[in-house]
Amino acid sequence: MTQPTLHYWYEFASPYSYLSAVRIGDVAKERGVKVIWRPFLLGGIYKMLELPIPPMQLNPMKAEYMWLDCARQAKRHGIPLHKPDHFPQSAVLPARVALIGLKEGWGEAFSIRVYQANFVHNQLISDVDVISQILAEMGQKPEHVMARATTPENKQALMAETQEAFDKKIFGVPTFFAGDEIFWGDDRLELALETAVG
Amino acid sequence: MTQPTLHYWYEFASPYSYLSAVRIGDVAKERGVKVIWRPFLLGGIYKMLELPIPPMQLNPMKAEYMWLDCARQAKRHGIPLHKPDHFPQSAVLPARVALIGLKEGWGEAFSIRVYQANFVHNQLISDVDVISQILAEMGQKPEHVMARATTPENKQALMAETQEAFDKKIFGVPTFFAGDEIFWGDDRLELALETAVG
Repeated sequence: MTQPTLHYWYEFASPYSYLSAVRIGDVAKERGVKVIWRPFLLGGIYKMLELPIPPMQLNPMKAEYMWLDCARQAKRHGIPLHKPDHFPQSAVLPARVALIGLKEGWGEAFSIRVYQANFVHNQLISDVDVISQILAEMGQKPEHVMARATTPENKQALMAETQEAFDKKIFGVPTFFAGDEIFWGDDRLELALETAVG
Repeated sequence: MTQPTLHYWYEFASPYSYLSAVRIGDVAKERGVKVIWRPFLLGGIYKMLELPIPPMQLNPMKAEYMWLDCARQAKRHGIPLHKPDHFPQSAVLPARVALIGLKEGWGEAFSIRVYQANFVHNQLISDVDVISQILAEMGQKPEHVMARATTPENKQALMAETQEAFDKKIFGVPTFFAGDEIFWGDDRLELALETAVG
């Protein structure tokens, strides 16, 4: 019997994706579900949909509420959350690095650290020094990783992931796929896992 | 000791408000919470925010997902849901009638029937005949109620409710208030009730 699998599509700019990134390891393990981490660029999808980035700026009251709700959910799960001074941040650099890391087995831990840089330590995740420091702390050689992350092939790979997200009708993050079934939002993670288990 | 109170702000066009309308009586009763029903016109708020109506039309993939998610939530709660041919519908007429009904003690039952007309029976809730039939079935005299619902005073009362919703930074529905704390979405109903209980 094959192990149940969940695809976790995420974007480093998103605070709700951060909540899922921190939670998903344990809650998936409890249910025996394997998680495939799928970083992509949500901004690329907004561009294809001709939406402003982020679309929430159209509704400032909703944007204000988002942080309130996210803080409540973080508290409920015991997850630290600090509203970053810069929001939303460009995730191009860490997403390119994450793709390399996921191929080499350190992508999940790296992704969590990037989220913590953004939503706990108020750091700029588009900053090469910030990402390099994370890599060094993880025992990676930052310059070697950066060189591989910025090859034309890897840049193209991230664009292909974003195109696949669009083709799968992903419009926000986090999004989970259990087979062909789509679930949007950190608060649908448990339901997505139940569906994956079947 | 005063009874814990929750304000339930709703709009008849909204399928998630329908889920809450059907659920809120029981889940509030279980927790000893009194619910104050607050109909208003979300379209009025979108106009004040200069957003298209509904804003979701900007993102057709999100709109498509909404129905999928809403159907899942309805199934989970055992609530019938039929995607209406007309969406979103104007809620001006039923909201005016609901304000009258809430003053006279039949507004909650009326509101649930309007939601069922929209989201179960695929009826036009902006149609005077549809609303009149609901009123007749409830033992009200439709013409008398309609006359009271369409007075300048009652029209003004609904506009005042919508303005109050805007002033409270309500941007979507359903929205719940436990004291000054705002909660958006049917899936935050239980948390809102817990907060009301304190």
